[in-house]
Amino acid sequence: MIFKEGDKFIEKFHLSEKIYDGFITLFKDRNPLHTDEQFAIDNGFKGRVMHGNILNGFISFFIGECLPVKNVIIHLQEIQFKNPVYLDDRLDFFAEVSGVFESVNTVEFKFNFKNIETKTVAKGKIQIGVFK
Amino acid sequence: MIFKEGDKFIEKFHLSEKIYDGFITLFKDRNPLHTDEQFAIDNGFKGRVMHGNILNGFISFFIGECLPVKNVIIHLQEIQFKNPVYLDDRLDFFAEVSGVFESVNTVEFKFNFKNIETKTVAKGKIQIGVFK
Repeated sequence: MIFKEGDKFIEKFHLSEKIYDGFITLFKDRNPLHTDEQFAIDNGFKGRVMHGNILNGFISFFIGECLPVKNVIIHLQEIQFKNPVYLDDRLDFFAEVSGVFESVNTVEFKFNFKNIETKTVAKGKIQIGVFK
Repeated sequence: MIFKEGDKFIEKFHLSEKIYDGFITLFKDRNPLHTDEQFAIDNGFKGRVMHGNILNGFISFFIGECLPVKNVIIHLQEIQFKNPVYLDDRLDFFAEVSGVFESVNTVEFKFNFKNIETKTVAKGKIQIGVFK
C-alpha cells in the first residue's frame, strides 16, 4: 500500500469568478444566498456566499489528480461547512491520511479548507478505494 | 418550521455529456477512471465512471432550488458511493426529512440516488440551517 497514516497533502484553490459562474451554469443552483448580494447581506453575511459544493469539486480534483497513484475511487465523502466562503477567496487545503485498511484496500483522509484569515471554512473526511 | 419529519422530495437528474464535460472543464479532474474508457474497463467497470462529485452538484441544486423555502444553507453533507454512474445515466433522487431540530433551526435529510435499474448508486444525508 502506497499510503501510510500521517501522510500529508497540501493544495491551494482559488474560488474565482470563472468557477463560480461555471458552477451555476452547470448545476443551475441560483439560490439567492449565492446570487443576490443584498439578500446575503440582509441575512448576516458579508456578501454572496459561494456554493459549498464547489469545495466538493476541489476535492474531486485532489483525489483524482493530486495523489501519487491514479487507481483510486471515492467511496465516502463527508464535509461540514463551518464558515462562509466568498467570491475570490483563496483557500488552503490540507489533507492527512487518517487510516489505512489494507485488507479492504481503503484509505481514509481527514481534510480541511482554511481561508486567508486561517479560519477553517470546511472540514471532513474522504474514504477511497485503491484498486489493483 | 416549514419542514416536518417524513416530508418527501423527488427529483430527476440526467448525467449528460454537457454536465460531464462541464465538470471536467471546471474542476480539471481528468483521472483516467473518468476519462479513459479502456482504463475503466480494464479495472472492471462498464466504461468511464462519472465523477461522484457531480452528484454533489445535483444536491446543491436540490437544496438551493427545490425546497419550499430559499433561506437555507448547507451545514453538513455526507455521501456514500455504492455503485458506478455512467455517462448518460438518468438518476432518480429521493430525499426525506429525517430530523427537525427547531431549537437550532436545523433540518436533516436522508437521500439516495437510484439508476434506471433501481440500483442505489449513492446515498447519504444533508443537514441544513433554515435562517430567519
